[in-house]
Amino acid sequence: MKKINFILALFIINISAFAQQALWGQQNIVSPEIHENNTVTFRLRAPKAVKVEVTGDFLPVEKNGETGKAPLTENKDGIWEFTTEKPLASELYSYSFIVDELKINDPSNVYMIRDVASVTNVFIIDGEKGKLYSVNNVPHGSVTRCWYNSPSLKMKRKLTLYTPAGYESGNKKYPVLYLLHGMGGDEEAWIALGRTAQILDNLIAQGKAKPMIVVMPNGNADQEAAPGESSLGMIKPTMQLPKTMEGSMEESFPDIVNFVDRNYRTVKTKSGRAIAGLSMGGFHSLHISKQYPDMFNYVGLFSAAIMPNEKVKSPIYDNMEAKLKTQFSKNPALYWIAIGNTDFLYKANADYRKLLDEKGYKYTYFESEEGHIWKNWRIYLTAFSQMIFK
Amino acid sequence: MKKINFILALFIINISAFAQQALWGQQNIVSPEIHENNTVTFRLRAPKAVKVEVTGDFLPVEKNGETGKAPLTENKDGIWEFTTEKPLASELYSYSFIVDELKINDPSNVYMIRDVASVTNVFIIDGEKGKLYSVNNVPHGSVTRCWYNSPSLKMKRKLTLYTPAGYESGNKKYPVLYLLHGMGGDEEAWIALGRTAQILDNLIAQGKAKPMIVVMPNGNADQEAAPGESSLGMIKPTMQLPKTMEGSMEESFPDIVNFVDRNYRTVKTKSGRAIAGLSMGGFHSLHISKQYPDMFNYVGLFSAAIMPNEKVKSPIYDNMEAKLKTQFSKNPALYWIAIGNTDFLYKANADYRKLLDEKGYKYTYFESEEGHIWKNWRIYLTAFSQMIFK
Repeated sequence: MKKINFILALFIINISAFAQQALWGQQNIVSPEIHENNTVTFRLRAPKAVKVEVTGDFLPVEKNGETGKAPLTENKDGIWEFTTEKPLASELYSYSFIVDELKINDPSNVYMIRDVASVTNVFIIDGEKGKLYSVNNVPHGSVTRCWYNSPSLKMKRKLTLYTPAGYESGNKKYPVLYLLHGMGGDEEAWIALGRTAQILDNLIAQGKAKPMIVVMPNGNADQEAAPGESSLGMIKPTMQLPKTMEGSMEESFPDIVNFVDRNYRTVKTKSGRAIAGLSMGGFHSLHISKQYPDMFNYVGLFSAAIMPNEKVKSPIYDNMEAKLKTQFSKNPALYWIAIGNTDFLYKANADYRKLLDEKGYKYTYFESEEGHIWKNWRIYLTAFSQMIFK
Repeated sequence: MKKINFILALFIINISAFAQQALWGQQNIVSPEIHENNTVTFRLRAPKAVKVEVTGDFLPVEKNGETGKAPLTENKDGIWEFTTEKPLASELYSYSFIVDELKINDPSNVYMIRDVASVTNVFIIDGEKGKLYSVNNVPHGSVTRCWYNSPSLKMKRKLTLYTPAGYESGNKKYPVLYLLHGMGGDEEAWIALGRTAQILDNLIAQGKAKPMIVVMPNGNADQEAAPGESSLGMIKPTMQLPKTMEGSMEESFPDIVNFVDRNYRTVKTKSGRAIAGLSMGGFHSLHISKQYPDMFNYVGLFSAAIMPNEKVKSPIYDNMEAKLKTQFSKNPALYWIAIGNTDFLYKANADYRKLLDEKGYKYTYFESEEGHIWKNWRIYLTAFSQMIFK
C-alpha cells in the first residue's frame, strides 16, 4: 500500500491545475453582484473594448420599443462596470452585454435561459416574486422529460412533466394542469422561463395551491421535441414552424391526456383537469377546451392569441359559436382570461370578452401592467394555479 | 363573431415583430456550419474587433498544454470566419471565441454545456461516436430530476435519474447503474457532458446494453443540488467544496440506494447493481464498493483518483487492504479500471493495478489515448454499460 502515495492535497493541486481553465479561463470577477439594497453591479473584463453596454429587462424600455441599454465605464484594470441607480424590484431579470456592437453573454454568469433562438443571462432579485421563482427549503417535486406516442400525429413526442413532492412515495391521485407555450417555444419554455417547478413547489408548500401534476407538452405539431432534443440534432431554433395553429395540435391533444392518464396517478375526470397557455398556447387552450367540452373544468387564457382562424380549414375551427355554447352550457368551474394593458393582443382579447359578455358566458378577467412578456406569464401562472382544483 | 377579425397572417406578423429581437437581435448567421465533408466553419459578426480567435477541443492542444486556438479572418461585412483545414473526426466538441482578449460564447449557437464555472458551445460531428451521442429515432428513456432524503447527511438532496424506454408503461424490474461525477461536478454533469441518456437510449436500442436505470447523484456531500438548483440560489460554481473526499459521500451512499429501491422498480440485489465514476467519482466508487461489499456486482473506475486518503480520518478509509480482500473474496462480476495514457493520474492507477496484481485480485483494464477529459469518460461509459448486467 505504501506504493500508493498520492495524497488528497496533491490530488487537489493536480486537478485544480487541470481545471484552471474550466474555472478561471473565464473571468474571475463577480457579475452580476446584487447588493444588499438590491442595486446591481454588472462587470466585464474587456481591456481592448471601446464601448460596453448592458441591455436587459431591468432597464426602462427605450422610446423605439427596444430593450433598455446602459453604458458601462472602464476602470484602470480593463474592467468595465455599471451599477443600477435604484434598487431593482423583486423579479427574475434577463440581460446581455453589447461590446462594440457585438451582443454577448456575461462570461462571469453561468445562469442563462434560451428563448427561441436567443440565450440571455438571468438573475433574481429577492423579495416576494424572487422568492416565489427561487428554489427554497421546501419539499420539492420532480421534473421528468419523457416521450409519448401520438397516434394522431404518427410521432413519438417529448414532454416535460412536474409531479408534486410526495408523488413517488405515495399512492394518491393528483389533478393535472396542462400548460402550453407560445409561438417559438417548446416543452422547455415553461419549466425554464416560466419557473413552473419553483412556483408550484412554493405555492404548494405554502398551502396556496393544491398538489397537482403539471404537463408541459410541445405545441408545434410537426416537432418531436425542442431544438437539440430530437433526431433533427442541434438545429437553429426558429420562430415560425409549419404546424402550429392549423388544428393538428388541438386535434391530437387527447393523445397527451391519454398518455398521462395511463402512466401517472391522475384524477381521470373533467374536475381533475385544467388547461392554460400563453399567446399561441392560449389560442390552443381556447380551441382544445371547446373542442373537448367534457375534458377540462378550468381554462386559462394568458395573453391569448384570440382568433377564429376562419382562413384555416380545420374541423377544429369550424362552428366556433356553437362549440362555445356547448362548452359554457356545461359550466366550466373557471374560465380565466388574463392580459397586460400594453399587449398587442389587448384589443383581440377585449373583443373576445365582449362576445362572451353578449352571450352571457361566465368568465373571470385579470388585467396586469405591461405586455407580451414572461414576467406577466409567471404572474398569471401564479394566480391561475391557486384558483384551480379547489 | 365578425368583431374578432384577427387572422393568422396578421398575428404572425405581430408576434414576429415582437420576437424579432429574440430571434434576430442575435446574429442571423450560421455558426458552426458543418459541411458535408465534416470540415466546420465558425462565424462571428464583430465589425469593430481587431482580433478574433476560436478555441476548442477540435484543435490540437498547444505546446504549453492549453486548448488550441485558430485565428478567424474578417470579410468586408464585418463577419469573421474560420474553416477547419481537415474534416473533423466524429465527436462531441466544445469551443468558444476570443475577441480582443475577451472569451465569449458563439451568439449564433444556442447549444452550450456548463463544466464547473465555464459555459462553452458544443457541436456534434456525425459518424460512429456522434451518432451514439445524438438523439436518434429510437425508443427514448425518461430523465427525471428528483429530491431524496438523506438521513445520514440530514439533508434533502437532488439527483438525476434515467429510466429506459418502456419503464412507465411496464411492470418489469430493472438493474441500476450508479454513475458518479468528478470534482467540481454535480448531478447535471453526466447527463449534460456525459450524454448518458443518448448513449443509453442508443445502446439499448441496438441490443448492446441491457435496459437499466441510471442514477446520477450529487457527490459533494455538503451540497443539496447543483449550483442554481438549491436554496443557495444562483451562486458562482466552484471547483473545491469542503465535503467531497472525506468520507461523508461514501458513508451516506446507502441513503441513495434505499431511495431508489423504495421508489423505482429495481432489482434489489447485488447482481442488479453497478457503480462507476470518473476522477473523484472513481475514488468514490472504489471506496463505496469496498465499504459495502454486498452492494455492487460491477465496479467501474474511470480515470479514478486513486489514493488511500490516509491523511483523512474517516472509517471509510481505514483498513483499505482488509476491505479490498473482503470485496474481492466475494468475486465481483466486473472490476473495470480505465484511464487515458496521458492522464495525470496514470501512475496512481498503474500503482493500484500493481497492488491488485500482487494480491491476485481479478480486474479488467482498459487504456485509451489522451487524458483527463470528457471525451474519454463518454468512451468509458459506452464500454462499461455494455459489460454489465449480462
